[in-house]
Amino acid sequence: MEKLSDIGEDALIDRVTVGLPLGPEVVTGPGDDCAVMQSSDPEVYELLKTDCLVEGVHFSHGTDPEQVGWKALCRSLSDIAAMAGTPRAALVTIAVPADHDVSTVEGWYRGLKKAAEHYGVSIVGGETSSLPENAEIAFLSLMLTGTVPRDRCLFRHGAKVGDRITVTGRLGGSFVSGRHLDVVPRLREAQWLASAGADRPTAMMDLSDGLAKDLPRLAKASGNLGWRIDFEAVPCHDDCDVGAAVGDGEDYELLMTLPSESADELLKSWATAFSDLPLTVIGEITESEKTPLTGGWEHFRKG
Amino acid sequence: MEKLSDIGEDALIDRVTVGLPLGPEVVTGPGDDCAVMQSSDPEVYELLKTDCLVEGVHFSHGTDPEQVGWKALCRSLSDIAAMAGTPRAALVTIAVPADHDVSTVEGWYRGLKKAAEHYGVSIVGGETSSLPENAEIAFLSLMLTGTVPRDRCLFRHGAKVGDRITVTGRLGGSFVSGRHLDVVPRLREAQWLASAGADRPTAMMDLSDGLAKDLPRLAKASGNLGWRIDFEAVPCHDDCDVGAAVGDGEDYELLMTLPSESADELLKSWATAFSDLPLTVIGEITESEKTPLTGGWEHFRKG
Repeated sequence: MEKLSDIGEDALIDRVTVGLPLGPEVVTGPGDDCAVMQSSDPEVYELLKTDCLVEGVHFSHGTDPEQVGWKALCRSLSDIAAMAGTPRAALVTIAVPADHDVSTVEGWYRGLKKAAEHYGVSIVGGETSSLPENAEIAFLSLMLTGTVPRDRCLFRHGAKVGDRITVTGRLGGSFVSGRHLDVVPRLREAQWLASAGADRPTAMMDLSDGLAKDLPRLAKASGNLGWRIDFEAVPCHDDCDVGAAVGDGEDYELLMTLPSESADELLKSWATAFSDLPLTVIGEITESEKTPLTGGWEHFRKG
Repeated sequence: MEKLSDIGEDALIDRVTVGLPLGPEVVTGPGDDCAVMQSSDPEVYELLKTDCLVEGVHFSHGTDPEQVGWKALCRSLSDIAAMAGTPRAALVTIAVPADHDVSTVEGWYRGLKKAAEHYGVSIVGGETSSLPENAEIAFLSLMLTGTVPRDRCLFRHGAKVGDRITVTGRLGGSFVSGRHLDVVPRLREAQWLASAGADRPTAMMDLSDGLAKDLPRLAKASGNLGWRIDFEAVPCHDDCDVGAAVGDGEDYELLMTLPSESADELLKSWATAFSDLPLTVIGEITESEKTPLTGGWEHFRKG
């Protein structure tokens, strides 16, 4: 019997997404940070995202439930940001055993509401389910919708040879330090980048599984391109080294490629607009050369 | 410590939905079969639904995975039907332990694709997560969007005293017989009902938790009204009695209230349009009298 641990998450997704029914209103199906749909307004795309948090995988038992709720919504908001979108509505699914305490679920909702209010999202519904009594886990799933002007939507594909590989903020050590619980979705920053006309990113995504996993996905989506990374340029958090910054994941920063001819100019404007958040060039897109990257998170894989 | 089993699902939902952020574009938030949002087209509402299936709760270990996939999507489609909507896009979240076999997940997707193709739904993305190794469960969550013309949307609220309580199909014995795996969402039927002008239902929902749980919800949403049920009129499946028909749940038929003056006329037209599916009056809405109903499914409650 073939197990999921034998093939890993990426191969599983490749298999099950073959032949998915996709109607003419689908702009982008599986494979980007959000699904993109045409809306009844020809100038506006609709964004759809689903995401889940599992106790014991995405957060530890005993974690402050309000922080769990905050993270649950903000992780999905980070995917809306990755498309340069504006979030709109969320639905919340929770599944917990019947002997779970009520106060934890109420705490999750406090965090969800706090994040929703902060980022202007309506929580319009959801679903609650029991889990079998012996299941010592808890499960939160988020569904999120958003919108983006058609001419501002940024995809994973679109990077060109020579484009500057660029990241917001600092990377690494997120899970160990607990920073992963305080996800700050880069919504405003992404919208600013998408409004930069010809200087805007050619491709963008958010860093959730780590640069080592996510950059190859962006390069693959852009026509099987490669990458050259200058490790000394990678902006690390003070409490970790460049290995952690490349491999840890859970950064929820933006990874993008900038046209080489205008990257310097854009970085200057950025420094004025967002003086507290670095925007850093860490390498460039190549035709096929690939700087070896190790680490990154993939579900089902062991070790 | 207060546990979920102490308060039950309905009380939990009442607690956590207090003070949810709801923007002006929200027509109906939590509490109906779908959330209803204004869209960029003023004549069209957007419907949003999330739903989940847990192994050991909604289906047994060893159930044909293709049937599980079919049920997962069609349960949500039944909620789109309950609003008289047309489904549009689905996202699929699965969470399973790493030692789970690949073929089961592939089977789920075969069922999901089959249902999506049959009902014209695009599967535009999703999420996969591992579960801790000791978690002997599997989890599927569906996110679904749909649309409905603004003047055709049917809600749980709207029933009036004297309205005829009416159901499609036959009820009861769904889980024991295995019928719950072959959910047939009443999409076409619901759209037909919603197009009946002044004769259309005043309120509608789908029967997922059983008449004993669901009818009180419809009556409560319609201004704390009551109900009188004629048990002899309840259309039971051949393999079960009226107790099962009222209490079992998982029927995925439509429960609606029809204006008394035109109900007979509508039933006649129905019989021509849908000769294979009964539409049956089983009682009427009252001001406060409530025929006692026992049974129905509520998560977290024991026994």
